[in-house]
Amino acid sequence: MTTRFWCEQAWLPEGPTDAVGIDVDGDVITAVTLGAPRRGTVLPGLTLPGAVNRHSHAFHRALRGHPAEGRGSFWAWREAMYRVAAVLDPDGYRRLATAVYAEMALAGFTTVTEFHYLHRDPAGRPYADPNAMGHALVEAARCAGLRLLLLDTCYLAGGFGVAPDGVQQRFADTDVDAWATRSQALTTHDDGTRTRVGAAVHSVRAVPAAALPAVAAWAERDARALHVHLSEQPAENDACLAAHGVTPTALLDGAGCLGPRTTAVHATHLTAGDVTALARAGAHACLCPTTERDLGDGIGPAGQLADAGVSLCLGSDGQTVIDPFEEMRALEMHERLRDRVRGRFTARELIVAGTDGAALAPGGPADLVTVDTGSVRTAGARPLGVPLSASAADVRHVVVAGRTVVRDGVHHHVERPAARLAEEITALLDHRGAP
Amino acid sequence: MTTRFWCEQAWLPEGPTDAVGIDVDGDVITAVTLGAPRRGTVLPGLTLPGAVNRHSHAFHRALRGHPAEGRGSFWAWREAMYRVAAVLDPDGYRRLATAVYAEMALAGFTTVTEFHYLHRDPAGRPYADPNAMGHALVEAARCAGLRLLLLDTCYLAGGFGVAPDGVQQRFADTDVDAWATRSQALTTHDDGTRTRVGAAVHSVRAVPAAALPAVAAWAERDARALHVHLSEQPAENDACLAAHGVTPTALLDGAGCLGPRTTAVHATHLTAGDVTALARAGAHACLCPTTERDLGDGIGPAGQLADAGVSLCLGSDGQTVIDPFEEMRALEMHERLRDRVRGRFTARELIVAGTDGAALAPGGPADLVTVDTGSVRTAGARPLGVPLSASAADVRHVVVAGRTVVRDGVHHHVERPAARLAEEITALLDHRGAP
Repeated sequence: MTTRFWCEQAWLPEGPTDAVGIDVDGDVITAVTLGAPRRGTVLPGLTLPGAVNRHSHAFHRALRGHPAEGRGSFWAWREAMYRVAAVLDPDGYRRLATAVYAEMALAGFTTVTEFHYLHRDPAGRPYADPNAMGHALVEAARCAGLRLLLLDTCYLAGGFGVAPDGVQQRFADTDVDAWATRSQALTTHDDGTRTRVGAAVHSVRAVPAAALPAVAAWAERDARALHVHLSEQPAENDACLAAHGVTPTALLDGAGCLGPRTTAVHATHLTAGDVTALARAGAHACLCPTTERDLGDGIGPAGQLADAGVSLCLGSDGQTVIDPFEEMRALEMHERLRDRVRGRFTARELIVAGTDGAALAPGGPADLVTVDTGSVRTAGARPLGVPLSASAADVRHVVVAGRTVVRDGVHHHVERPAARLAEEITALLDHRGAP
Repeated sequence: MTTRFWCEQAWLPEGPTDAVGIDVDGDVITAVTLGAPRRGTVLPGLTLPGAVNRHSHAFHRALRGHPAEGRGSFWAWREAMYRVAAVLDPDGYRRLATAVYAEMALAGFTTVTEFHYLHRDPAGRPYADPNAMGHALVEAARCAGLRLLLLDTCYLAGGFGVAPDGVQQRFADTDVDAWATRSQALTTHDDGTRTRVGAAVHSVRAVPAAALPAVAAWAERDARALHVHLSEQPAENDACLAAHGVTPTALLDGAGCLGPRTTAVHATHLTAGDVTALARAGAHACLCPTTERDLGDGIGPAGQLADAGVSLCLGSDGQTVIDPFEEMRALEMHERLRDRVRGRFTARELIVAGTDGAALAPGGPADLVTVDTGSVRTAGARPLGVPLSASAADVRHVVVAGRTVVRDGVHHHVERPAARLAEEITALLDHRGAP
């Protein structure tokens, strides 16, 4: 059955265009009509392809607005995050993630890529169903109406040659074969469209070099996505060089982990050789600018990666901010802060990164995000400049896989998402005190 | 007559506190009552001191969302800005600035500091009333309900030893005495509270060294504020060194322009000696982080300035973003991006900068901004973390000088501010084509 959406303006591959009809069948766009008559579901404002969140840790949302007093580091932040990770259970995580994903939908994300590593129970034992936490995330995305790419993360070590300790035991599998068995069981959720399952190497810190080829092989067998946290902090590079004599990128490359379905997350501290290796492999890089600035990671080499031909995508990661427009802008703004040159990325390139290349074109995903072009933030902007002016608060209407998820700024399926966020986060933090 | 506001939570000097009564008489807070009964005007959420915008060029709002394609520089941006400056007239500027100031009020700003340099008509001749444009800005702030510090800007040269050219002739006065005469006439608006008048040196590029002492003396005579664009771009430093053999800060210092009522705007590219000179003089520094990243200025030495004892304040400057929370966060985030250390500024220090030290305390200004603590952005945050989570879109209620200006996110006095922005900006840009 074909559904017609009528866009006052639509961000087509050839540029923002007035009066566009978009026909949808199932979860795919079947036709785009220019100069279309105003009929079907009317979308006033500028309709963009759905934003794709390529890196999320849903539970980190609980840390937003819980600042440490005084100075800190990535590693001190990690301790606070571990305290939240220690108390989640499958039912609580389903409820929290549903609210977090609803916030993402309201902000204009239509896909979430969940880098999921909270596998075991608080005592470090497998749940009766070892994928209990994974199932909770699948259910959360379904309730919130988002497409999900669920990355089952391999985590075997607490550092180079160090066994998982404390809460890290929740993240761990016994060995890479146990991880692969569990991940394989999770793939029953994969329908190829709304829910997909992929693999992740947590990092070269957490997966011993000897185990990397098995993760890559598992992902390769069914052409699944493979993501990896890469060189977010200089300390990781230093430790990898000390342990293996090569950079994390070179280690992954040698283990067969870099290919066209690989996404390197962060990729903040790279050598020129690392950039070349990623480009040669056809790998993608997922920057998470609002998280990288929050954690003091530094400014990644987005421009260099793009110059080398690496496709860029974006993620909300630590959820300090859930706003695809802010991530897109920050990609460009951080380049400006470092290089003092404006316009490394055009508005169109920022949208390509923010939607991971999705297009409003026949065969494209039926994922639509309509932005109010008449808010105090967007008023007066050229259509091409709207993404540089808008914020999550300007998203009025969201369609995912052909179905309306947000209408007039209200989530269709999740009632009172902000109240749910507050309830779940308060319950979590009361369990052990604020992080 | 005393008015009572009741705050569900209030950001008091001693920390966020529940159930606070704030009594207001005229434009001043007369009493703060802890554990107050719920009566008077109820403000649900967290009430903060009003945000103070210490650097604004209202008409730059027309440039938001008009990206240049391709790379660019500060100086290319300046050309686009000049094209807008060329077509404004007093009546149009009053209408545009009213809408821009209404946007500021909706975002939680209760004071705007307008660095006003658009004095003459498009042909470069004084208007019949040489303060026609200044009067328009006073009227705009009044209509939008904001407190105004109007800085009458001295602009005599287009660069070191270069006469004003083209649109720069709109900014210029014949000489510093003509500037002082005009500025003096403008002071009739100064009521010491809602409207104040101060002086500005546009920059050391635009005011010859010989004229600086006269500007300083004019400001000094009536203890008026004196602002100056300082070292925003390395090119300014280079040109000043070439012309005078000293940095812009040293030049200003030698001319008597640095004192406790001086605010150095941007202060991005300073030497250690410059920082010391600003601190010794008791001068303030106004950073404009969202503008400095937009223009590719670089990351200013906020931490160094604060360490030296220089008070920091914030401005929306180029209006790419009008959001005091974004400016406060960016102050800290830019430090993190550069130094890779978290927490140079605490949440309280960021609020001090964002409010220029205003406090909800007896004798303080009756300027209140209430933020929704139950939005998807702020839900789950500790009260202390709300300013790190909120955005302009979360501002629900704004009181300026004791009077309600924004209620439930709607401006009390300016109807349809976004539509007005769109109308005025479209009219401006149609006049000469998009910049």
